[in-house]
Amino acid sequence: MARLVMKFGGTSVADIARIRNVAQHVKREVDHGNEVAVVVSAMAGATNQLVAWTREIAPYHDAREYDAVVASGEQVTAGLTALALQEIGIDARSWQGWQIPISTDETHGAARITAIDGAVLIDRLQRGQVAVIAGFQGLAPDNRIATLGRGGSDTSAVAIAAAIGADRCDIYTDVDGIYTTDPRVVPKAQRLAQISYEEMLELASLGARVMQVRSVELAMVHRVRTFVRSSFEKPDEIPAAEPRGTLICDEDEIVEKKTVTGIAYSKDEAQLTLRRVKDKPGVAAAVFGPLAAANINVDMIVQNVSEDAATTDITFTVPIAEHDRARKVLEDSSAAIGYELIQSSPDVTKVSVIGIGMRSHAGVAAEAFQALAARGINIRAITTSEIKISMLIDAPFTELAVRTLHSVYGLDDS
Amino acid sequence: MARLVMKFGGTSVADIARIRNVAQHVKREVDHGNEVAVVVSAMAGATNQLVAWTREIAPYHDAREYDAVVASGEQVTAGLTALALQEIGIDARSWQGWQIPISTDETHGAARITAIDGAVLIDRLQRGQVAVIAGFQGLAPDNRIATLGRGGSDTSAVAIAAAIGADRCDIYTDVDGIYTTDPRVVPKAQRLAQISYEEMLELASLGARVMQVRSVELAMVHRVRTFVRSSFEKPDEIPAAEPRGTLICDEDEIVEKKTVTGIAYSKDEAQLTLRRVKDKPGVAAAVFGPLAAANINVDMIVQNVSEDAATTDITFTVPIAEHDRARKVLEDSSAAIGYELIQSSPDVTKVSVIGIGMRSHAGVAAEAFQALAARGINIRAITTSEIKISMLIDAPFTELAVRTLHSVYGLDDS
Repeated sequence: MARLVMKFGGTSVADIARIRNVAQHVKREVDHGNEVAVVVSAMAGATNQLVAWTREIAPYHDAREYDAVVASGEQVTAGLTALALQEIGIDARSWQGWQIPISTDETHGAARITAIDGAVLIDRLQRGQVAVIAGFQGLAPDNRIATLGRGGSDTSAVAIAAAIGADRCDIYTDVDGIYTTDPRVVPKAQRLAQISYEEMLELASLGARVMQVRSVELAMVHRVRTFVRSSFEKPDEIPAAEPRGTLICDEDEIVEKKTVTGIAYSKDEAQLTLRRVKDKPGVAAAVFGPLAAANINVDMIVQNVSEDAATTDITFTVPIAEHDRARKVLEDSSAAIGYELIQSSPDVTKVSVIGIGMRSHAGVAAEAFQALAARGINIRAITTSEIKISMLIDAPFTELAVRTLHSVYGLDDS
Repeated sequence: MARLVMKFGGTSVADIARIRNVAQHVKREVDHGNEVAVVVSAMAGATNQLVAWTREIAPYHDAREYDAVVASGEQVTAGLTALALQEIGIDARSWQGWQIPISTDETHGAARITAIDGAVLIDRLQRGQVAVIAGFQGLAPDNRIATLGRGGSDTSAVAIAAAIGADRCDIYTDVDGIYTTDPRVVPKAQRLAQISYEEMLELASLGARVMQVRSVELAMVHRVRTFVRSSFEKPDEIPAAEPRGTLICDEDEIVEKKTVTGIAYSKDEAQLTLRRVKDKPGVAAAVFGPLAAANINVDMIVQNVSEDAATTDITFTVPIAEHDRARKVLEDSSAAIGYELIQSSPDVTKVSVIGIGMRSHAGVAAEAFQALAARGINIRAITTSEIKISMLIDAPFTELAVRTLHSVYGLDDS
């Protein structure tokens, strides 16, 4: 017997037939003697409609009203899912964020969960009732509904799993796990049986869209074993012993450790380079302060030592949608920063190699650089962390680079 | 300066353009220096979709889950309306039933409001903030959302008006007031400037669909002056002095008193007659007890003294949809009741003449009987109260009877 959280995203509850399918998945776990808390997103498309309405009325809206409107999508799914469960003989009830409560901070529209009282839920679970919880929402200190931002239901699920001490948090989605890279680019990509929290965090941050970054962070902090799996598998055809999916877990739990776990890429990047910036203390603050003030997210930052030692070049990336605005901010701050030239390119891709094994293996980065060079792919900038190498390349080479790296690190399915 | 409740039904908030129109109506009142609480229904069609989903999943559903799902419609409209008000420079916020709270009893799906704490709302109104309240919903003792049943937003509006001591409750709808009868049947029907609570209660009970019966009851008990008016009038073309509509108010406030105020009719009736029922104490209970146990609403009841003094005939009506079930209940109870024959007709109409002036005028009923007789319309059964006469006739004569009575009592627009 285990205590499980089962989270179902928008495509998994897109219509009544899909909600009935969710109920069957839950029934399977209940029949195995498990205690189950279910977390649901809004029906696919519902949130978009609600958001569109708020934007049509008020492009710059009161986030508290936005939250009241948009959170209704999950409210509906929670009620319908509880009904679908009752209809097949399972004791179930729906829970809104404010009923538990799931407490959040005051950042309406992109709130963070601050506390969840798991006591009532645990009591109901122990009495054999399935809790169906509206994802994506909580109660802010002003006693109003707060939403967690896009993809927030993953975060709800992991946070609830932590609060009720769940043995596992199952994220049911439209894919059957985490792959070594995007299977649309590399048909030989393989599903990973296991991946460490740290690696998954890098993957999610670097462009893999399966789970929201915040939810992976939470899973890592609270050590919530999280299993990514498909809701499109037939509920009655899933083997009890080894269901298909990817377990995100502690490094120690991973049986077969590889040097490199996956290759990620992100095309939504634009590169900006400031040439011959005066190399003095405080210059980095002069560059990135105004960008932060304009709410522009800066990603890769590379500062090169330049030829003349009195000036330096600074390169960084921003989301492609922010390219023009970032350039404008830098132009407006040119006097304060003191640079000679801005160069920018919106047509770049960040390709990353991730693997916890890098920590103990030398030469992993060199392999990547050699492989790309052999293919004639120019590397514009490089950043590294303990468990990943990110390289900025020209966008047209994206697929070639990903396939090359996937093969070099022995990730191709044989 | 006055304190107002403004209630807008589903067709008045059917889309974003209509919600913007609502905001303009509210702005007009705010600009006049009034304190305003707005009560909104779900966007037209939204509730039907939500109800359809719950029925598709579970025909006999848990009313608590039904409530969670269906109440989301009003939640959305309240948020959107608050945004629309903010967008035209009016301080406004939305309120869900559980936030105020609007307390209800535990009858999920058809709950009654038990208490509303007006203190927080009054405080906000006095500080110049418009309160936009989700109609149709409240918080049950189990800390879960409860809905008030169809048309419940009228009840919300009147109850809130009572709780905050509003000077008037404006019900904005798709008609511009209460008419002497259905204008589709009698083109000469006139809009009433005023009508007493008691008359409106009869009208609402007897088939006029403008306001829900429960809301009129509440208005009567709490003496909430209620003004029925159209949301389709252009907000900027409404005269400040005498806006068009019908004021439901205390009898004493009515200037021009008539003997008869209106003619109502209801086609959704079926007649059942038990012939030669043993005329002994307890027989009425034997008839109506089983019907009540089967949750069948019995309306007109007429018991005739029969020819032989040992038996009697009992006639009553039920909603047409319940006809077959009611007949079955009576057949199953035939031994306990002891009757000779059931006769029934699903093809009847109840026509009613309503007027507070009847109390002081003799001969009002006689006029009706004579007029219908002169047209060759047979009256199957009659019931009367202090301020109304109801007559059951054959359905094909409905329009003729309504027009005849409307003319006889001098209600035709000249």
